[in-house]
Amino acid sequence: MQVFTEELTATGRLTAYVQDPSDELASAATRPAMLVLPGGGYRFCSDREAEPVALAYLAQGFNCFVLRYAVGEHPWTDSFADGVAALEWIRDHADEVNIDPEKVAVVGFSAGGHLAASLGVSAPRRPDALVLGYPVTLAEFGPPVGKEFIDCPSHVDELTPPTFLFSTQGDTLVPIRNSLRFLTALAEHDIAFESHIYLLGPHGLSLATAAVANGRAAMVDDSVSQWLTDSVTFLRRIFGDFAVAGEAEVYADLLERRRPGLDMPVNRLLADDALTAVLDTHLPAEVIAALRSDGLAWSLSLRDLSGHQPELLNARVLEGLERDLHAVRN
Amino acid sequence: MQVFTEELTATGRLTAYVQDPSDELASAATRPAMLVLPGGGYRFCSDREAEPVALAYLAQGFNCFVLRYAVGEHPWTDSFADGVAALEWIRDHADEVNIDPEKVAVVGFSAGGHLAASLGVSAPRRPDALVLGYPVTLAEFGPPVGKEFIDCPSHVDELTPPTFLFSTQGDTLVPIRNSLRFLTALAEHDIAFESHIYLLGPHGLSLATAAVANGRAAMVDDSVSQWLTDSVTFLRRIFGDFAVAGEAEVYADLLERRRPGLDMPVNRLLADDALTAVLDTHLPAEVIAALRSDGLAWSLSLRDLSGHQPELLNARVLEGLERDLHAVRN
Amino acid sequence: MQVFTEELTATGRLTAYVQDPSDELASAATRPAMLVLPGGGYRFCSDREAEPVALAYLAQGFNCFVLRYAVGEHPWTDSFADGVAALEWIRDHADEVNIDPEKVAVVGFSAGGHLAASLGVSAPRRPDALVLGYPVTLAEFGPPVGKEFIDCPSHVDELTPPTFLFSTQGDTLVPIRNSLRFLTALAEHDIAFESHIYLLGPHGLSLATAAVANGRAAMVDDSVSQWLTDSVTFLRRIFGDFAVAGEAEVYADLLERRRPGLDMPVNRLLADDALTAVLDTHLPAEVIAALRSDGLAWSLSLRDLSGHQPELLNARVLEGLERDLHAVRN
Amino acid sequence: MQVFTEELTATGRLTAYVQDPSDELASAATRPAMLVLPGGGYRFCSDREAEPVALAYLAQGFNCFVLRYAVGEHPWTDSFADGVAALEWIRDHADEVNIDPEKVAVVGFSAGGHLAASLGVSAPRRPDALVLGYPVTLAEFGPPVGKEFIDCPSHVDELTPPTFLFSTQGDTLVPIRNSLRFLTALAEHDIAFESHIYLLGPHGLSLATAAVANGRAAMVDDSVSQWLTDSVTFLRRIFGDFAVAGEAEVYADLLERRRPGLDMPVNRLLADDALTAVLDTHLPAEVIAALRSDGLAWSLSLRDLSGHQPELLNARVLEGLERDLHAVRN
Repeated sequence: MQVFTEELTATGRLTAYVQDPSDELASAATRPAMLVLPGGGYRFCSDREAEPVALAYLAQGFNCFVLRYAVGEHPWTDSFADGVAALEWIRDHADEVNIDPEKVAVVGFSAGGHLAASLGVSAPRRPDALVLGYPVTLAEFGPPVGKEFIDCPSHVDELTPPTFLFSTQGDTLVPIRNSLRFLTALAEHDIAFESHIYLLGPHGLSLATAAVANGRAAMVDDSVSQWLTDSVTFLRRIFGDFAVAGEAEVYADLLERRRPGLDMPVNRLLADDALTAVLDTHLPAEVIAALRSDGLAWSLSLRDLSGHQPELLNARVLEGLERDLHAVRN
Repeated sequence: MQVFTEELTATGRLTAYVQDPSDELASAATRPAMLVLPGGGYRFCSDREAEPVALAYLAQGFNCFVLRYAVGEHPWTDSFADGVAALEWIRDHADEVNIDPEKVAVVGFSAGGHLAASLGVSAPRRPDALVLGYPVTLAEFGPPVGKEFIDCPSHVDELTPPTFLFSTQGDTLVPIRNSLRFLTALAEHDIAFESHIYLLGPHGLSLATAAVANGRAAMVDDSVSQWLTDSVTFLRRIFGDFAVAGEAEVYADLLERRRPGLDMPVNRLLADDALTAVLDTHLPAEVIAALRSDGLAWSLSLRDLSGHQPELLNARVLEGLERDLHAVRN
Repeated sequence: MQVFTEELTATGRLTAYVQDPSDELASAATRPAMLVLPGGGYRFCSDREAEPVALAYLAQGFNCFVLRYAVGEHPWTDSFADGVAALEWIRDHADEVNIDPEKVAVVGFSAGGHLAASLGVSAPRRPDALVLGYPVTLAEFGPPVGKEFIDCPSHVDELTPPTFLFSTQGDTLVPIRNSLRFLTALAEHDIAFESHIYLLGPHGLSLATAAVANGRAAMVDDSVSQWLTDSVTFLRRIFGDFAVAGEAEVYADLLERRRPGLDMPVNRLLADDALTAVLDTHLPAEVIAALRSDGLAWSLSLRDLSGHQPELLNARVLEGLERDLHAVRN
Repeated sequence: MQVFTEELTATGRLTAYVQDPSDELASAATRPAMLVLPGGGYRFCSDREAEPVALAYLAQGFNCFVLRYAVGEHPWTDSFADGVAALEWIRDHADEVNIDPEKVAVVGFSAGGHLAASLGVSAPRRPDALVLGYPVTLAEFGPPVGKEFIDCPSHVDELTPPTFLFSTQGDTLVPIRNSLRFLTALAEHDIAFESHIYLLGPHGLSLATAAVANGRAAMVDDSVSQWLTDSVTFLRRIFGDFAVAGEAEVYADLLERRRPGLDMPVNRLLADDALTAVLDTHLPAEVIAALRSDGLAWSLSLRDLSGHQPELLNARVLEGLERDLHAVRN
């Protein structure tokens, strides 16, 4: 993995976490991207909502980016500009960081949730999905933190991306109407969303696990910690999962591998005299000798091997083998 | 996060993934460590069982280390020596990489599972826990891959660490007796273990998710993919989880914050005339003015604030406030 | 289990599912109750939202009650009266049906969700908790089904019980504003709630499992099916779970049972000569003989046995045994 | 649900739990069956492993049967005969109790696990699947409970059904070799199995939930309690799940219902003048009036309605509607 930091603006620093490419992971050559916006009341960027969140999405196959954006004395427009710059940088460097520029999600918490929602309703090029954790969304919460910022619900439009939102109804810092009004606006504009509002839990739960609780039992909640995997399921439904092809394993496959035929491993065929006799009839002696001596090949089935050596195990040979092996079954 | 690679020996390369320390994550200053040993039949080290596995444990709070060990022409003793060197390096650099040298687990897959088990039964200083994924454990599987290596079950002793083992009973490459004999040996020596042998799935599932399946549907299985979190639960039971103190949130806390008293947020007290009158009785006017103007403080309760300003909100003042606020309840 | 049906009114039939009491389940002598209100547009009561839902809560330890209420030509006030009668019957017969009359929850789906919410906001004695599945809550949806009924959000008051609500944002029959307006009303009145609004799924999912899908793949959704266990967690947080006492098992217990001492099973002590010698010193020969011959007792530890035979294994004897057994450890 | 008890033999009593049939649950007309064999050391039949287990499988769609079998003074052959009689009764009454006589599983715990395993290796007609919870399987454990019974591992043969086995490695009453030897025998005979051996937990956990713990915290374990759903997944892989057909909902369906076309609900088409104009062009005025007035129909799409009224909305009409509605999209 490459981890590196870009200075995007005077106030915006973007740390990229880019997984190593590999021929063995070819289907993941282009990953979805997750931009992480920590909270902190626009006063600071909380470490509890930064790298641990990036690691959680990395483990789910995303390449991730943590933005430290303008806080404190800087006007909110600087924070917003940093978010826009991060989205642009990620999409402009899509090839370099192995991501799909049309699968760029943003996750933000608390004030970072406000910034994420602001990007979702008004960035020049919107994120492709939003994940909002106990977000501030209402303009009325600007003055208490000394900021003037946009009211997200009233800016929701038809370009607002699909949104996953979670919060806790026991949060006393950011009242739940920040969530409900944003959801209501999404519903009015027909924007797809999913929402989990949990019963318990104070503000600032992040992943709600002991690893990020910094020692406070109240910051751990097994219900709330489900948001992470639920958000991944949501994003996969929007973006699609890593593509797989072929058939999933079913019980019938297992049974078939245990009965004489093209799916039984060669080493099991060769452990039985009657089955070996069938192989002798259809295959040259030197091929059988080679199969016996190759520690990895001998666990493969004749069907597997036909993919590697189609000239030797062609359709006609396979057909004869199948017929004669099945005949031994009873 | 720091990601860097150490050349431990002529054949052993160790890549370290070390999470950034933070005052906000002080309770995670010393993390458990996970050494990842990919499989590949002692012919190569599979990328599918390397970085993605490290990322999965990083997301659970571990610092992680991936070892590329001696394979191919090298004798097995070189592979083993690389494993020993990795364990030593990690423990010797415990301070530097922020891990607890008595919480060093090893996870290995297939041939990497054999190497992990070998370290568990015969390293000079053993790992503190093992996680074995569809492991080879029997000496009889050396010759098929051109190696001579130890028979792990017959070396299990009282120093063998607690072991988590998973495999699939439909694996045709590494027969399930590799798992059952090792478990039997653990049981005979009273070594604590947990084991999940799943019905379906071919050899080499790694995390059994689409992100590491490299496009093959047969490599994805929702049952098998549970092994990761089950192994984390196992390791936490052995090592202990990240410590938390205080009380978890319960429903009664929620109710209490919604009734006049020391747990109600100040902003809610100040929104009610009768309650504000109680505050006026017990607190100086300038304190109340300060509470009104501080966007973050105003969501705290009097009990929270007493922790920050014990001289102002001392026990006697709190007692009076509680009595008078409770009196307003009905 | 007893299953029986009561005719409560001309239109209301209540089927009770009451688990068998047992001395072995003494701590479940008083169970929470769940009243199930199926949906069906006030035209019928759907079997898909009746017995299968009762079985789901029975399996979680509730005693359950399914109400078939007035539908079709009957005015809505009859439906409501049936709901009130059911709540009354359950509480009046609490002793007979082994439930706690202060832990009576109501779960309703679609139109049944409207009826449940109506009971929650206006029954003479309210339910103790609500579970609403893709509910109708707004009066505007009465006329389309030929009914006139109350607008639930505008009746929310401080007596409204804690509420768990789930729905799907893709429901085209009952628009999501039915959920959002009810949640907003709960928030405004400080009523505790939890809410899960899922991305996908048509109206009428019930448990969202294949067993109740009646053959339609669109009625199965692994995300939505989580609502059942999430609702049970919610209800346990409100009602409390079945009480347990003592300590949960931890890893240290396991280790202690494997080392000579008061927690090692007697059969293991007796399998070792040195440890048997310690027993011989502290216990009469006939007691040791009895322990050897009793197939069940011999797996108990000395500490366990002291609970059964305190006169024989009193504190002084235990202390001596512990000291001498520990001495054998090394 | 029907709950009734049959006296099968002088010592065997079978309690049946049969879910109500319904046209709305037509695809569940034939359910899998679960025969529950409680444990109790062949001294008694434990209530903790009886009805609560039946309820757990009922909630998953099985019809269930609890057998109280010969215990105490009766020889083990009587217990076995009771088990055989129960299997026979269930299959003989398959039509009456709505089960598939080729999907009869048996779950047994402890001594009940021994009885289940005995049926699996030697009943005249075997169960179709086994679920064994912390089972006794070895003949050596007969004498300690005053019985002589068969050694299950040495009787495993090719007719032994697929087996799911769970136990805890910390069980001091029934040593883990009872599990490992049975699994080894299954592996040697190529019988499909799944096995979960958990780290912690005393003997007799049953479902490992608070509801069946009877007040003992040590009998609750969140890891072990997963066995129930894991066993259901296993059984569905063997038996097949309740059949569903058609397509599962995906995100594209949601989007399509929100864009003018055949999948948009009629009420949304009628809320827009341009779209209503399209309907006016293709449908008779009285049909549109009927759609407006029917509270349930108006949420259906034109595609849905075409299934109900194919003569009105035939292929040609649908094609014209689709073309013109799409034209309105932009």
